Amino acid sequence: MKNISILGATGSIGTQTLDVIRNSNNEINLVGISANSSVSKIIEIINEFKPKYVAMMERESAEVIKNYCTENNFNIEVYSGIEGLEKIASLDEIEMVVTSVVGMIGLKPTLKAIEAGKDIALANKETLVVAGELVMKKAKEHGVEILPVDSEHSAIFQSLNGYTEKDVSKIILTASGGPFRGKDVEYLKNVTVDDALKHPKWNMGQKISIDSATLMNKGLEVIEAHFLFNCPYEDIEVVVHPQSIMHSMVEYNDASVIAQLGSTDMKLPIQYAINKKERKNAVAKRLNFYEIGNLTFEKPDLETFRCLKLAYKVGMEGGLAPCILNGANEEAVALLLERKIKFLDIPKIIEEALEVFKGEKNKEVNLENVINLDNEVRKYIRARWN
Amino acid sequence: MKNISILGATGSIGTQTLDVIRNSNNEINLVGISANSSVSKIIEIINEFKPKYVAMMERESAEVIKNYCTENNFNIEVYSGIEGLEKIASLDEIEMVVTSVVGMIGLKPTLKAIEAGKDIALANKETLVVAGELVMKKAKEHGVEILPVDSEHSAIFQSLNGYTEKDVSKIILTASGGPFRGKDVEYLKNVTVDDALKHPKWNMGQKISIDSATLMNKGLEVIEAHFLFNCPYEDIEVVVHPQSIMHSMVEYNDASVIAQLGSTDMKLPIQYAINKKERKNAVAKRLNFYEIGNLTFEKPDLETFRCLKLAYKVGMEGGLAPCILNGANEEAVALLLERKIKFLDIPKIIEEALEVFKGEKNKEVNLENVINLDNEVRKYIRARWN
Repeated sequence: MKNISILGATGSIGTQTLDVIRNSNNEINLVGISANSSVSKIIEIINEFKPKYVAMMERESAEVIKNYCTENNFNIEVYSGIEGLEKIASLDEIEMVVTSVVGMIGLKPTLKAIEAGKDIALANKETLVVAGELVMKKAKEHGVEILPVDSEHSAIFQSLNGYTEKDVSKIILTASGGPFRGKDVEYLKNVTVDDALKHPKWNMGQKISIDSATLMNKGLEVIEAHFLFNCPYEDIEVVVHPQSIMHSMVEYNDASVIAQLGSTDMKLPIQYAINKKERKNAVAKRLNFYEIGNLTFEKPDLETFRCLKLAYKVGMEGGLAPCILNGANEEAVALLLERKIKFLDIPKIIEEALEVFKGEKNKEVNLENVINLDNEVRKYIRARWN
Repeated sequence: MKNISILGATGSIGTQTLDVIRNSNNEINLVGISANSSVSKIIEIINEFKPKYVAMMERESAEVIKNYCTENNFNIEVYSGIEGLEKIASLDEIEMVVTSVVGMIGLKPTLKAIEAGKDIALANKETLVVAGELVMKKAKEHGVEILPVDSEHSAIFQSLNGYTEKDVSKIILTASGGPFRGKDVEYLKNVTVDDALKHPKWNMGQKISIDSATLMNKGLEVIEAHFLFNCPYEDIEVVVHPQSIMHSMVEYNDASVIAQLGSTDMKLPIQYAINKKERKNAVAKRLNFYEIGNLTFEKPDLETFRCLKLAYKVGMEGGLAPCILNGANEEAVALLLERKIKFLDIPKIIEEALEVFKGEKNKEVNLENVINLDNEVRKYIRARWN
């Protein structure tokens, strides 16, 4: 039996991870969970899985959970705040942490988990975007495996199986194109938050749905792929593939391309990561090639979807540039969800932040600098746009 | 440097293997070659590659080559007949044999090579069709690797990398559909040999071109895949994919599908096999996904293309049934190329042979029984249809 923790157990990936555990024939044991403030969902998980440790980011929610456990005679340790998440990520009993929190909040607990020698099933792409260099270096030092959960990176990981970066000529990331594929800037001027939240293929959380609509999600994935697979940006290609059946590809030196295909179900990459590449019995639905019919591929429109272009740019600049982009994007997406800005303001806000903070981007990529710069960027944007 | 022999050096695969060797930076050294009777082509190869051993199936051709070598002071041993091919396949100096002869003639030299401990880059699918059980058992006994060269089986081999049959739920063989895809029986009644030889995607030898038009090629590949990958026939699916870009796929227990894609160039799988899975610099052209546009998939029409259905049937029957099918098919294709029968006579001839020889199919699969039965089947068909 394998003992694991889930950071962000009540979100989209967290919930699907629970489903994978339910179908694991008791091979996976849930020891620790965390959430931000979803008290009722955490109580459901406690009742079903009886974890030994729970952390709530919000202190008030932690108090509610503590009281619930006392009333029900559950012998569960309850923590709170970012220290609570760090605790859940580094428990003695566990071998692996599923990091499915959204946003750069995942960075500190992920680093704690790595320092404690836990393998990471990584669904928190922002961690690698803001501090990829640091995270990958620490993982190497501590002999820890980083197993990608993003469907694209899982596809690359599966397509690489056995080969290394020296064998690879190109990574081909597929992109669904999001709800606004084929639209122009004129059209995008008037789209609403609700339009942007309607993803054609994947059912996901709000932040990632907006990122998919701007193509920033693909941009963050380009940066994530760069760090995960040690691949130069020039050798990472984005191909729009609206059917979302081919989840990504690797082109090798010999011109052979290996691809991974599957239904649009995150349970597949979650299961693959948790089981460290073992092929367990299917939780996801199988493909039927007689019914699929058509797979199409096209070039992304980088002039309309400027976020993707910006991500390549900051990736190539390196240092703390991706941290500025990520902080600005997280804040801009929050502002859009609060209906305070328009869809096309997102790239504008990011460009402005990159200009304002350009003096910071060459500082060392360490935890302190990352957290401080991220804070400054967010504060600046909130002050300007709130 | 790796020393190899090529059986069938003047055919389509043989010629492309020479191209791979030319581009190998002297990592591959050609020690032995064989051909049926193509004297002028063999002389060209001798002049360019200076192999130490040559075998010609036809004794007269061997004499011509012997004289040529004497006149030119080439220190080359020249052999003839099937014993000559066996000699080339089992030379002390070599590590690997590329078996690119066409038809069941490849069986004896392949077995000799295996017994001598040589790895096999297998382009001669008939060998596995007629005696797959025997060949795979011998390979295991002698610790020999069988590396498939067929584009489909190479694709499966590449997609399997690191996984084994216990991880696999299904093998998905793609088929171009051949020149008569979408046609009905009425149409096929009047097609000519020349129509059948015009393959839409691959430039190949005559035998395999006809087999592609009848879909028997895919049938033989189903049987080949069964033996190579130890996969039950129920778990081998054929999908028509007219673009011939996705060369085949593996579906795993977890519902994940891994596929190999590449240009329609046999040099890629040849290079992969010869280099035993190492990813060397490209000899084949790279794919461009911005230009590919569309990949389509459809169900094969087993009622119109009965050869594929027959192959599944004999495969499931096992024993010597595939040997009867293969002998009948080789002879029928020869008759078609000699303009002595019509296109739709091919499945008829095979069905008749399967009926006539059904008493033989449960005999033991050993070399003697295979060769005798193959002979009898051919003699019977020649007598009936010549």
